Amino acid sequence: MRFSAADSADQSVLVTEVGTRDGFQVEAEFIPTESKAAVINALIDAGVRSFEATSFVSPRAIPQLADASQLMDLIERKPGVRLTALVPNARGAERAAAAKVDMMACFVSASESHCQANLNKPIERALADVAEFVPIARQFNIPVRGAIAVAFGCPFEGDTPVDSLLRIADTYHELGVRHLSLGDTTGMATPPVVERAVDALQRRFSDMEIALHFHNTRGVGLANVMVGLQMGIREFESSIAGLGGCPFAPGASGNICTEDLVYLLQESGYQTGIDLDRLCEVARQVESLLGRGLPGQVMKAGQRLRKFTLDGARRAVG
Amino acid sequence: MRFSAADSADQSVLVTEVGTRDGFQVEAEFIPTESKAAVINALIDAGVRSFEATSFVSPRAIPQLADASQLMDLIERKPGVRLTALVPNARGAERAAAAKVDMMACFVSASESHCQANLNKPIERALADVAEFVPIARQFNIPVRGAIAVAFGCPFEGDTPVDSLLRIADTYHELGVRHLSLGDTTGMATPPVVERAVDALQRRFSDMEIALHFHNTRGVGLANVMVGLQMGIREFESSIAGLGGCPFAPGASGNICTEDLVYLLQESGYQTGIDLDRLCEVARQVESLLGRGLPGQVMKAGQRLRKFTLDGARRAVG
Repeated sequence: MRFSAADSADQSVLVTEVGTRDGFQVEAEFIPTESKAAVINALIDAGVRSFEATSFVSPRAIPQLADASQLMDLIERKPGVRLTALVPNARGAERAAAAKVDMMACFVSASESHCQANLNKPIERALADVAEFVPIARQFNIPVRGAIAVAFGCPFEGDTPVDSLLRIADTYHELGVRHLSLGDTTGMATPPVVERAVDALQRRFSDMEIALHFHNTRGVGLANVMVGLQMGIREFESSIAGLGGCPFAPGASGNICTEDLVYLLQESGYQTGIDLDRLCEVARQVESLLGRGLPGQVMKAGQRLRKFTLDGARRAVG
Repeated sequence: MRFSAADSADQSVLVTEVGTRDGFQVEAEFIPTESKAAVINALIDAGVRSFEATSFVSPRAIPQLADASQLMDLIERKPGVRLTALVPNARGAERAAAAKVDMMACFVSASESHCQANLNKPIERALADVAEFVPIARQFNIPVRGAIAVAFGCPFEGDTPVDSLLRIADTYHELGVRHLSLGDTTGMATPPVVERAVDALQRRFSDMEIALHFHNTRGVGLANVMVGLQMGIREFESSIAGLGGCPFAPGASGNICTEDLVYLLQESGYQTGIDLDRLCEVARQVESLLGRGLPGQVMKAGQRLRKFTLDGARRAVG
């Protein structure tokens, strides 16, 4: 019944920052490569140890991420920091290897409609492309992470059957992939949906590390994290300041917010190795960079035990 | 380990709407009484069965709620709908009784500094005032609910010791109060803090119903609801559209959002008796009423299984 980490053997949680990929890719205006690198470098300084930094998809598909190679060059590499990039095929894998990524992420949608809309090919073909590039990654000794999009529901098809997840995860597993990331691409995950999916995957594989990637499109992103924590998940993907969005829900939130996630984890007794105050500074810098307010809460409210004076309160109230 | 209600004997959850009190009271511009009543009446039509509708504090203290009696008159009363009002003292109790509230809520802060700032009196004196008005409520056969502000932390004093909660709850209990509401006034609740407080109160009292009142100031409001659900709590207080705010955190969210809470509950198998689509309509009406966007997510994103077409998606993306 307890939520805090005090009873858990494993209190360490890996937070993977995806803001410069999943967040920035929905920004219409091109963000200078130097600014993207500055965000990642500042996050590394704040203690973030894992990134989905960019994507080696076709520059024509996502112009915002066309600078993937240059971005990798500008990141100040540090031991213990893992830089992952999305890779759609063999050509992307060659580019990613040349850019010295620490991990490649392959990705397939759990529904045919979304796979077609997102990758412009059916699931079978997407999996064949993954099978083609995994040996390239292996050749460069770069581990591969397998992502599944719309893992908790598809905006075109509705519920995602657990069997669809198992089918893709089976293929990943056969290819030697041992890291799985379940993506809540349009924010359809709920506690029972998460529980059902994670339970099925944990039962099927004893040797797959599972990460959860939630969006806060319907406000329940951190509630879903609570489910993951209780099921033993120790890696979550999030965006600094709550970057990102959902093309189907104008005005709705994007990915769960890194600093709010870290706040929840640390207050619940988990260790992330991240300095929350510095993380909030970076979040505010990202607001400045984009020139608008972003959904993150802790960067506005401050740490839990931040003290106020009565006088200050009256001023604030009045 | 399971979060869904499927394993629970009691799947019914009471959602108490506090937006017209806790939300509206931070609005600088006076909201016409008719508009306030329209919000409550629309929520009743959507299936909401419990409200903290207003407050019978001194009109000078909170001008926005100076229309408490008139507001009560404009609400279309229905059987099974409970209209609660905050009551600070005997005079407020007389006014509330005359306005035919279904329940009175007394309130005391768990910290001396906040009690002084909020009620302008020490805790001892605030409890004495409660002791004075409870017999008046009893005389009118109106049940009293006991609220504790800053129950999970105080912006002036930091952590709220569990003993402070027990002391106030003991006094309430001696006065015959059997409904307790723990208020996270400035959004300092976290999973372990909630767990500790609720556990202590559940151990002390076998005959007190406990409601939880969370703010989303630091983004973890619904994560805290998850803790409450797992501990058997079956009443939560929230604001339509996520109304409200925190005087200490400009730009931060207010109360947890009613429609997002109802979404989480219903998707997790709990019954609230509320029509989520109609609730979202009211949330959008409240945005129009205040002339600005509000934090609620589900009103923007829609129901979980809302379907999109590929064509619509491409248009939305492009």
